[in-house]
Amino acid sequence: MIIAVSMLNPEAQDWWCKELSRLMPEDTIVPRDGIENPESVDYALVWRPATGWIASLPNLRAVISCAAGVDHIFADSALPADMPVIRTIGDDLTQRMKEYVLLHVLRHHRRMPDICAAQRNREWNQIVTPVASERTVAILGLGNLGATAAGAVSAIGFRTLGWSRSLKRIGGVECHAGEEGLRAVIGAADIVVNLLPLTDETRGLIDAAFLAAMKPGASFINAGRGGHVVEADLLAALDAGQLSHATLDVFETEPLPDDSPFWSHPSVTVTPHIASMIDPMTGARIVARNIREHRDTGRSPFEVSAERGY
Amino acid sequence: MIIAVSMLNPEAQDWWCKELSRLMPEDTIVPRDGIENPESVDYALVWRPATGWIASLPNLRAVISCAAGVDHIFADSALPADMPVIRTIGDDLTQRMKEYVLLHVLRHHRRMPDICAAQRNREWNQIVTPVASERTVAILGLGNLGATAAGAVSAIGFRTLGWSRSLKRIGGVECHAGEEGLRAVIGAADIVVNLLPLTDETRGLIDAAFLAAMKPGASFINAGRGGHVVEADLLAALDAGQLSHATLDVFETEPLPDDSPFWSHPSVTVTPHIASMIDPMTGARIVARNIREHRDTGRSPFEVSAERGY
Ligand SMILES: NC(=O)c1ccc[n+]([C@@H]2O[C@H](COP(=O)([O-])OP(=O)(O)OC[C@H]3O[C@@H](n4cnc5c(N)ncnc54)[C@H](OP(=O)(O)O)[C@@H]3O)[C@@H](O)[C@H]2O)c1
Ligand SMILES: NC(=O)c1ccc[n+]([C@@H]2O[C@H](COP(=O)([O-])OP(=O)(O)OC[C@H]3O[C@@H](n4cnc5c(N)ncnc54)[C@H](OP(=O)(O)O)[C@@H]3O)[C@@H](O)[C@H]2O)c1
Repeated sequence: MIIAVSMLNPEAQDWWCKELSRLMPEDTIVPRDGIENPESVDYALVWRPATGWIASLPNLRAVISCAAGVDHIFADSALPADMPVIRTIGDDLTQRMKEYVLLHVLRHHRRMPDICAAQRNREWNQIVTPVASERTVAILGLGNLGATAAGAVSAIGFRTLGWSRSLKRIGGVECHAGEEGLRAVIGAADIVVNLLPLTDETRGLIDAAFLAAMKPGASFINAGRGGHVVEADLLAALDAGQLSHATLDVFETEPLPDDSPFWSHPSVTVTPHIASMIDPMTGARIVARNIREHRDTGRSPFEVSAERGY
Repeated sequence: MIIAVSMLNPEAQDWWCKELSRLMPEDTIVPRDGIENPESVDYALVWRPATGWIASLPNLRAVISCAAGVDHIFADSALPADMPVIRTIGDDLTQRMKEYVLLHVLRHHRRMPDICAAQRNREWNQIVTPVASERTVAILGLGNLGATAAGAVSAIGFRTLGWSRSLKRIGGVECHAGEEGLRAVIGAADIVVNLLPLTDETRGLIDAAFLAAMKPGASFINAGRGGHVVEADLLAALDAGQLSHATLDVFETEPLPDDSPFWSHPSVTVTPHIASMIDPMTGARIVARNIREHRDTGRSPFEVSAERGY
């Protein structure tokens, strides 16, 4: 097989080529600018490929995202409509997202940003917070990552609500679906966590109307995608005090531009898209396994739906 | 019954007098400076009572600590040797400490202090940390609070070690005891959490020798008592880089003095003794129940051992 690799970051591309060559010694791994014959390429492993690059490989059997999200592939307007797209998920990724969500939910719950601000002012300010059972946390998106995160948040003692397209059943989590479900969930939550995939339906979901429907003084954690949030609307809601705090891992433009108001906003915590980066060694093993499985069976349990966009 | 109340903070003392009067309408609740006849006082509810004050109440049946710790009572050198001392614990307290320990263990694990520092410098610095299963967390003290905290830390996926006087069995936690056990535990842990009670044996435990026996670059969370730590030794270990970070909830002197170097140390997070403050309403119900039980039976399951000091 010939597997082409296209990553935005040249070092990441190098690393993936080397590691896959090691794991798949019988196959040929080539970086995107090392392809001799486009017709010979069987699989493409990508992060945000250039528009039209995938279409330029006429015999491609599938595109593999090196991560859980696939919005960076569907963003390619020239993507052939019937091209199978396979994502990379695993326990490592789920565990890391669980840690991130627990950390930041607890950090909002226990008002750590205020406690850190008090420390900077040498103020002994004994902020006492309600106990977790008196707080409501909403998780938007109950897929591979959201369902695990919701279960873990509930296990710590929070009242936990969840929202997805189709109605789910998760122990300890009050599940909702649909437009009405969304209003119920965000109207009741003290802390809202976004773990949706970015699709035509979810782009810009978190806008002024959404933020106004949240509980006054609630807080927001975005570990989904920057495109879910209308950034100007979020800033306005923070400035108006409608939201008390936002912790943002993902942004419309990444790396976050130097002049973004988020960097220095007193009610914003910026984390640099590190909520869940799969350990590359583990990720490479999963990618190799998924490609082999697709080669042998013509299908993959990790293939996403082009129609749904996730 | 006559119940005398002595708190350091006059507002807290007022609150306790009112709340206990409400919960125990058949009894007389008096503040410490409102006692008419010392011989008539049956119980004393206290936080750090003045030296000799308890001894001045000749017919006292027991002293009640309004919190889980009792070191503030045993600190009274005039405390009658056979005076029963009853502490106040409950699910609310345990839950709050569990939240605090999970939050701060995750915060150290995911290097949030470094991520916040990067935000202040507008740096997009993608710090990637090992997954929880590759981190070892040690909990010192496996009592009411420590055992629950250790179980919760283990449930998130950390390798979890515990240390106590007598050897314990806790699911998911590698338990150790004794002096040798301590060396094994602190030598292996990436994050050490102190949840010991302050006694003659544990005072000053966390000194230069202890800190030198920790894994280089490990971090420390103190939710026990300030007296466990030799503060100058901790500062030296942080300055030398032997410890990467310390999160301190308790201090030798509280409130933390304005000129304490902890306030502005770049590797120290100060929280103002808020790890677990029992909800006062819940606490008052537990105190009333414990006093009545002691009156009726002459004993309490929450009586501590004067000999052990906890
Ligand atoms: N920040 C980071 O480091 C990081 C790391 C990894 C992933 N992510 C993001 O996390 C996202 C989620 O990952 P995942 O693996 O959990 O995805 P997933 O397994 O595909 O699950 C997506 C969930 O969102 C729900 N959903 C999709 N469209 C919806 C809509 N229009 N309305 C309501 N619910 C909708 C789905 O509902 P159904 O269950 O009904 O299908 C499903 O529950 C990824 O797409 C990626 O953007 C971020
Ligand atoms: N920061 C806060 O907000 C806050 C709030 C509440 C409490 N606290 C502190 O937390 C402490 C612990 O509370 P708790 O209710 O969990 O206490 P506890 O139930 O009395 O448990 C104490 C634990 O420490 C162990 N221990 C005592 N002396 C020891 C020694 N010399 N060597 C080794 N292990 C020793 C005990 O061992 P055995 O099991 O063998 O007896 C036990 O496991 C309190 O005393 C208080 O100082 C702090």
